[in-house]
Amino acid sequence: MILSNRIQNMQFSPIRKLVPYAEEAKKKGVSVYHLNIGQPDIKTPETFIEGIRKYDDEVLKYANSQGIPELIESFIKYYKEWNIEFDNDEIIVTNGGSEALMFALMAICDYDDEVIIPEPFYTNYNGFSAVAGTKVVPVTTKAEEGFHLPSKEVIESKITDRTRAIMISNPGNPTGVVYSEEEVRMLADIVKEHDLFLISDEVYREFVYDGLKYTSALYMDDIVDRVILIDSVSKRYSACGARIGLVASKNKEIINQIMKLAQSRLCVPTVEQIACANLIKTPKAYFEEVLKEYETRRNILYKKLSEMPGVICKKPTGAFYVVAKLPVESGEDFAKWLLTDFNYQNKTVMIAPAEGFYATEGLGKDEIRISYCLNTTALEDAMNILGMALEKYISIKK
Amino acid sequence: MILSNRIQNMQFSPIRKLVPYAEEAKKKGVSVYHLNIGQPDIKTPETFIEGIRKYDDEVLKYANSQGIPELIESFIKYYKEWNIEFDNDEIIVTNGGSEALMFALMAICDYDDEVIIPEPFYTNYNGFSAVAGTKVVPVTTKAEEGFHLPSKEVIESKITDRTRAIMISNPGNPTGVVYSEEEVRMLADIVKEHDLFLISDEVYREFVYDGLKYTSALYMDDIVDRVILIDSVSKRYSACGARIGLVASKNKEIINQIMKLAQSRLCVPTVEQIACANLIKTPKAYFEEVLKEYETRRNILYKKLSEMPGVICKKPTGAFYVVAKLPVESGEDFAKWLLTDFNYQNKTVMIAPAEGFYATEGLGKDEIRISYCLNTTALEDAMNILGMALEKYISIKK
Repeated sequence: MILSNRIQNMQFSPIRKLVPYAEEAKKKGVSVYHLNIGQPDIKTPETFIEGIRKYDDEVLKYANSQGIPELIESFIKYYKEWNIEFDNDEIIVTNGGSEALMFALMAICDYDDEVIIPEPFYTNYNGFSAVAGTKVVPVTTKAEEGFHLPSKEVIESKITDRTRAIMISNPGNPTGVVYSEEEVRMLADIVKEHDLFLISDEVYREFVYDGLKYTSALYMDDIVDRVILIDSVSKRYSACGARIGLVASKNKEIINQIMKLAQSRLCVPTVEQIACANLIKTPKAYFEEVLKEYETRRNILYKKLSEMPGVICKKPTGAFYVVAKLPVESGEDFAKWLLTDFNYQNKTVMIAPAEGFYATEGLGKDEIRISYCLNTTALEDAMNILGMALEKYISIKK
Repeated sequence: MILSNRIQNMQFSPIRKLVPYAEEAKKKGVSVYHLNIGQPDIKTPETFIEGIRKYDDEVLKYANSQGIPELIESFIKYYKEWNIEFDNDEIIVTNGGSEALMFALMAICDYDDEVIIPEPFYTNYNGFSAVAGTKVVPVTTKAEEGFHLPSKEVIESKITDRTRAIMISNPGNPTGVVYSEEEVRMLADIVKEHDLFLISDEVYREFVYDGLKYTSALYMDDIVDRVILIDSVSKRYSACGARIGLVASKNKEIINQIMKLAQSRLCVPTVEQIACANLIKTPKAYFEEVLKEYETRRNILYKKLSEMPGVICKKPTGAFYVVAKLPVESGEDFAKWLLTDFNYQNKTVMIAPAEGFYATEGLGKDEIRISYCLNTTALEDAMNILGMALEKYISIKK
């Protein structure tokens, strides 16, 4: 009565193992600033609740497997504003970006096929790969280079006859990198020359700072049939709990085939779909305010990190994360110590060790991921505490 | 740029291919009675909407991966009424029974492992198996025997060294069979003697007629650590669109491992969980009425089927489906003909050909599945029309 190798080889969330220490700290009366999670604190637009109130069916029926028409239309309208044109049969609504990623992998990979992913990457890419039975082939990017992509040759050197796709998060979780037009063009050339797919996870599209230009993989006209777009309302509208995402492609055959997977799980929740279809009515001012808020936070975060001796970190330009290299041996030990052995005026911070974001053994040990989902006052306080803690930790470990 | 074998080998929903014919019929002004789908017409309890109204968070946050505590508590309370005791760490909330089934297969099977399933079975078991990369090994059950299980020896003859589990739907979709205590006991003996798991899909637990006793796999005390229970609020509360299900086991290690899968997709929608936690307050009278209604429908259905010459069908005792063997060569051709070539007073019926519910090539060709999710007046009319149609179809085909 043994369980599958597949599940035994999967990891628990790398964040999870620190949770008991955080709970212990809280029990001792220490308050913990959570710099470790990507749960935005921004208010969800009123349009969501208004959408929920629209629901008045007597029987809570299955929705259709593709997603309700109002929601698909709202997505089509949304993409038009980003100069991306989708037809009705090019989008399938999913249970968050998570299911969209799983569907994409399932549709193009067989067991043991390979997907090239720049590391550090969103840890759940590991989980989806385990579920799909595919192999993650990492391309290492570096803190010193702001986690931008290496050369075309380096990426191409990872391609084998089992490679089916390159998968990116742009803007990037956990790095905050925003790929330049040249970088996306380079990826487009690679997938074209090597007959691959490009799975582009663009859930942080709205979160690009410094007036930088965001380049969707779909802006590369000559490879749109190779692009599988992953998206979600979670971050855009601070609606993570809605679990509404989508998988989309200009390659109608991919979407047609993915419909089989969509049909097998019947549908995505009806009420959440109705509510999310109403999100399209969110006023533009909402996003402008949110963007300004995150940019201010990013500035605080980066300033504070720059002031810490020995910390290596380029200014992140997107999403709401940064990966920083610390002058410590083990980011995990430091993260644990913050919860078990340190506090300043009964306050401490929780950070995510970055090792779990790498597939290459041994990388990321001295790195951490910080998420800036705290208001500016809290963030400033948290970063000051982190700075003091780091100084103390280094002096102890000497 | 080819898609995976996995997805190419998957089937579209076997119902789907008839949909265009139904649409065509409706365009011509023919109204179609839907005896083909398991979407209950019963009103969802008020408690669901009341639950939705409870939601008032400013930020729609991720729920935890296991499910919100109120919902898990409500499930524990619910099972107590069925004499099933669960601890808090023995249940994980899922995106409908669908995700629960997928999680169960993923947790105990590796690629190419085998799962024994009595056929005809719920077609999506095929889809989940394709997703998990497992092989369905059917054990044939027959209309003439009311789709009860064959002997222990027949089932045991299907076991190989790749067999990991037996998977059942009890009460059964699509057959309406309710396994006797002896049958469940036999399955318990088999999984015990051959060191297997028993995946027990009991989403139709409430729908058992004629005062028959329902036997949960969990009533077999000596194998509770081998049972993985699949459940859902969809049918019980006529809340299919909520997509709230669960996977549960007295084997805590299974649940602990399945948490990895749950974490990788982050969580199930927050608002739906809050609403469903409130369903526990649904008055008992609701279920009594629903049961009476379905039993009446079942009686109409069975009476009408019995009156049709040459139709083979034992009285179904559970769920709200029946599989009937017709005196025709192809149930699919008959189902299509009903939509394209027949109407009585501008009305016709849509039924599901049963071939798609079998894994054994060639079986079920002369069978159909009928779902009784129509009110008694509509059902009576629909069955009269079906009877006339069958008579006419047979006379034409002679």
